[in-house]
Amino acid sequence: MKIILDAMGGDLAPKATVLGAVEAVKELGAQVVLVGRGDLILAELQRVGYSTLPTGIEILDAPDVVDMHDAPETVVKQRKDSSMIVGLRALAEGQGDAFISAGSTGALLTAATLIVKRIRGIRRAALSPTIPCQGGQFVLIDCGANAECTPEFLLQFAFMGSFYAKKFLEIRKPRVALLNNGVEDSKGTDLQKQTYPLLQQADRDGHIHFIGNIEAREVMTGGCDVLVTDGFSGNVFLKCVEGTAKFFSGELKSIFTSSLGSKIGALLCMKGVNGLKKKMDYRETGGTLFLGISKPVIKAHGSSDERAVFCAIRQAMQAVTSGVTNEIAANIDAMRAVKE
Amino acid sequence: MKIILDAMGGDLAPKATVLGAVEAVKELGAQVVLVGRGDLILAELQRVGYSTLPTGIEILDAPDVVDMHDAPETVVKQRKDSSMIVGLRALAEGQGDAFISAGSTGALLTAATLIVKRIRGIRRAALSPTIPCQGGQFVLIDCGANAECTPEFLLQFAFMGSFYAKKFLEIRKPRVALLNNGVEDSKGTDLQKQTYPLLQQADRDGHIHFIGNIEAREVMTGGCDVLVTDGFSGNVFLKCVEGTAKFFSGELKSIFTSSLGSKIGALLCMKGVNGLKKKMDYRETGGTLFLGISKPVIKAHGSSDERAVFCAIRQAMQAVTSGVTNEIAANIDAMRAVKE
Repeated sequence: MKIILDAMGGDLAPKATVLGAVEAVKELGAQVVLVGRGDLILAELQRVGYSTLPTGIEILDAPDVVDMHDAPETVVKQRKDSSMIVGLRALAEGQGDAFISAGSTGALLTAATLIVKRIRGIRRAALSPTIPCQGGQFVLIDCGANAECTPEFLLQFAFMGSFYAKKFLEIRKPRVALLNNGVEDSKGTDLQKQTYPLLQQADRDGHIHFIGNIEAREVMTGGCDVLVTDGFSGNVFLKCVEGTAKFFSGELKSIFTSSLGSKIGALLCMKGVNGLKKKMDYRETGGTLFLGISKPVIKAHGSSDERAVFCAIRQAMQAVTSGVTNEIAANIDAMRAVKE
Repeated sequence: MKIILDAMGGDLAPKATVLGAVEAVKELGAQVVLVGRGDLILAELQRVGYSTLPTGIEILDAPDVVDMHDAPETVVKQRKDSSMIVGLRALAEGQGDAFISAGSTGALLTAATLIVKRIRGIRRAALSPTIPCQGGQFVLIDCGANAECTPEFLLQFAFMGSFYAKKFLEIRKPRVALLNNGVEDSKGTDLQKQTYPLLQQADRDGHIHFIGNIEAREVMTGGCDVLVTDGFSGNVFLKCVEGTAKFFSGELKSIFTSSLGSKIGALLCMKGVNGLKKKMDYRETGGTLFLGISKPVIKAHGSSDERAVFCAIRQAMQAVTSGVTNEIAANIDAMRAVKE
């Protein structure tokens, strides 16, 4: 299996991408194609002691880089020699099995849609991170790719999220819920009201296990395995979890350092605190799969370090072997909203 | 000043409401009108040693109670003898200065709008809780009263939230921000895109201090004083903070109780942990003011205990003396979206 990696994407590239790739080749037996400026990639490899290309690593030269300020819709044309675009083209042409980039999310989504294409019948690709919650984790779909959605988009998100939870979280019958401002089926805006019966029907037809509307509070306490929502609310949700977690970490830090006694107290609790830190660490997940694209494309966190890149490669390999893309394609007929 | 209190609203009524009122009369010099079943209210008073009505407490008899399952739009007609409706009518007729209920939010908002009425020119009343964040707290408006909003609603929320932050949080120049999925002014759905220039104009005209779009993460780390959003996203935001806080409390609890060492550690950090608990305790705020109604109406938390009722009465008194309602009414001309 061959993973194509944008060696230039992300705040810590190319150092983090090159080192993460080397580690993945060693530990996971991955084959990695590093896309980017060959001279910079070779220099990073030399810095860690490789005078020639290590086995399992290839370089695909791309002189340009997508900038965070590039408008997503312009990169395919105006940055055609960038590591992101060259890498996506290599994926589309079958030079590898999956593509990873820590570059601009918007640019990656737009370019993946144009170059690698969506699975036939899928209206929109979605961003679907897994988020820790009480008792485990859940899949959030969509978390920002599509600010405005139709009920049919959400129906497709429900299917794709459910397949993903089965394959990646190993949940036999994922509980799919619709994010809403109350649990009654009359709640929400027109979008939620119209999506609800579609999800009910998909449940009756045996395609997904729809448990109804859910409020954000119950999600974090483990109320569902797949949280379906439009990209705007999903983005608010994800960033609110991150912000609240950051707020709590800050508060805890000041509690633990406020006096000599509390410093000793902190030492005594260190093991548990580190466990929680690890649970909340985005690096361990790797990245976020774009569900709905015809081949696995993964967005790694913009500030990915070597460990995060390693985990993203592991996740990409899992995406390939899981066959989640094929499962979506095979079920596409059930994922259409019947027109009234 | 006279505060009208729905003695029957909330999970712990009438015990919590009666005891909270008795405490507020003692501590704050409030006058409280308890609305509800006289026999039950008197029984609660007797239980704590009052054989006659204490000074400062009145009873307004209402034989019926609004049920949590009543459809909001039906309560004014079908529950006209309920404590909520009788209380709101008393407020409208000038028998008191503010009304508090821990009953159904939807019913209270609908009934307050129909009976007490909105301030002339205000399109929608909004729910505006204050939420703790790094370095202090901020006002969230709207958090669920209006799932679907127009840009003009949001413009009015920005004004009302700003006045509220000035009066209640004592911030001279509150930083008003629009909740969005990115900071660029092109971000969001049509609602955010159309609201942005209205808020910019209000800033240029010197009415509010608009600092632009904000992502949910930055809100929790203290990025704004007033967070403007539609009721759907606001509800997701609020409940996500609550859920994440609950998740963290659970994690901390298991860290602190996992071993003898960590138990000792927890004891050494107890002071700080209790401080954080108090900061996150909704009871200390009291309730949520409905901004835009012509007289102060406060929704107390459904599970309000005696302390929460006491704080809600304190908040109601503050709402009356602050003159926030008058300030909204005086500025209504600046709060209209100019039609293109």
